[in-house]
Amino acid sequence: MRKVKVFAPATVANVGCGFDVMGLALEGIGDEITITQRADSKIVISKITGADLPYDPNNNVVGAALKALLAEHDQAIGVDIEIDKKVMPGSGLGSSASSSAGIVVAANILLGNPFSKNDLVRFAMEGERLASKKPHADNVAASIYGGFVLIRSISPLDIIPINYPDNLVITIAHPQIEVKTAEAKKMLKESVRLDDAITQWGNTAGLVAGLMKGDYDLIGRSIMDVVAEPIRSLLIPFYHEAKQKAREAGAIGFNISGSGPAMFAITNDLGKAEKIKSVLHHIYESNGIPINCYISGISSGGVSEKI
Amino acid sequence: MRKVKVFAPATVANVGCGFDVMGLALEGIGDEITITQRADSKIVISKITGADLPYDPNNNVVGAALKALLAEHDQAIGVDIEIDKKVMPGSGLGSSASSSAGIVVAANILLGNPFSKNDLVRFAMEGERLASKKPHADNVAASIYGGFVLIRSISPLDIIPINYPDNLVITIAHPQIEVKTAEAKKMLKESVRLDDAITQWGNTAGLVAGLMKGDYDLIGRSIMDVVAEPIRSLLIPFYHEAKQKAREAGAIGFNISGSGPAMFAITNDLGKAEKIKSVLHHIYESNGIPINCYISGISSGGVSEKI
Repeated sequence: MRKVKVFAPATVANVGCGFDVMGLALEGIGDEITITQRADSKIVISKITGADLPYDPNNNVVGAALKALLAEHDQAIGVDIEIDKKVMPGSGLGSSASSSAGIVVAANILLGNPFSKNDLVRFAMEGERLASKKPHADNVAASIYGGFVLIRSISPLDIIPINYPDNLVITIAHPQIEVKTAEAKKMLKESVRLDDAITQWGNTAGLVAGLMKGDYDLIGRSIMDVVAEPIRSLLIPFYHEAKQKAREAGAIGFNISGSGPAMFAITNDLGKAEKIKSVLHHIYESNGIPINCYISGISSGGVSEKI
Repeated sequence: MRKVKVFAPATVANVGCGFDVMGLALEGIGDEITITQRADSKIVISKITGADLPYDPNNNVVGAALKALLAEHDQAIGVDIEIDKKVMPGSGLGSSASSSAGIVVAANILLGNPFSKNDLVRFAMEGERLASKKPHADNVAASIYGGFVLIRSISPLDIIPINYPDNLVITIAHPQIEVKTAEAKKMLKESVRLDDAITQWGNTAGLVAGLMKGDYDLIGRSIMDVVAEPIRSLLIPFYHEAKQKAREAGAIGFNISGSGPAMFAITNDLGKAEKIKSVLHHIYESNGIPINCYISGISSGGVSEKI
């Protein structure tokens, strides 16, 4: 039977200032999803490695995303699904989004690519709806499109790929504590001060301008968050020390990845990225908190087939 | 004695979505400011045409802006100032900003250009502080820099010129009713719903991306305002009819200029701009409201010396 295997990048949502509207895809971290067509029309999750997640397709994001896709396809098919989780749930690196993005891209390939990337984002958002109640698109759009994306609107869905300098390097630091996206979102207030909102939209626009101009300093000045970071950083021990030391080590920008606890630093220099990684590793390990750190380029193509 | 005359463009602040952070400069409308060096060190407003404004430099924005500039200059000078107002106060086209921008650029030329554009914006903001209590920069930065500008931050001041397609044409419709900026700002709430704020920063980022990509459709989709327009449009009779008819006539985007009552439409076609002008003129005149309509390109250079 036909088989498709894909690599679905982990993602950094918000990118500091663009709460719910910006995301970027990582090159080096991502889930692997393999689907094999079945003779019947059943959806079966046959294997999950790397995380303890439900095998019932009704309770797993891959099931929700795949069903949304199949509901718009005229031909009923069944598949066996193998999920190799590399993006830890609750990390802030878009774990549910990687699997949701991976399954819909894999299914699209299996079916002969009937759907557009925009369609695939729409389907993958149903995985996000299952994971966090609210169907946000910043992670799934970044994973499917690759690079930096702006989600100008989710209704109607309007995804804008943003050009960026090709030498950006991301350092990810993931302290081994879990933050649930739904709970982290609950901590945010339902309204923001107008002055703070103005600051935030100045920065979001500044980040887009900085990326498109290749202006590293502007990128750094724009990766500021007055809405989510002040609240979410309370859940991340040693956050402010980490931020300060990362900047001293050469980070252009530093902030929380998605709802955390993973943090990201952007540089344009691999040597600095390694220094930042080492500095962050030391802060947490010396305080008795295990931490995983990675250095990654930006995935330019998004979810890709593994041959 | 030495004399400098400048043309200081009128401006469209906010540009729909970028409340307090975006502005554009008009080519065809602007104040003319003439300064002549005096033998003494007095600041004298000797002539004002086109509007009924105070001659006392302490109560006129040009005085406030010029004093801010001279306070940072080591050489005391006096000037006679002539102001030819073409940008009507209370129009929403940055009337106080045009005069504030004009005076500081004129003084800078007279002094041999000791100050940067950023400095000049800072000084001109003191005119804005006098006019509307709060020193905003969107109008003065657009008038001084020209083109489209993003004011990422006012403290510290961070002005980002944004590239744009060179065939954009602006239609301005100014119904002859007055809206005071300070009062219009007072109508806005001090906080915004988080969901609305997210929509707004998606649009502000989308506008910057659309301008830099030359993507007219994206520019149009992004010129949306869920924060100020719903409130300020209440002060502008026939606003929604004007918007709908302008869009039917080919406007890519349409919104309130600054705090109104002037409205602007963007197109990439002079013929459409003329059609929009005619449609808007008809709506107001047929309802007994006098209206001034203009068609203008975008001023690429900002305040310019008139030889």
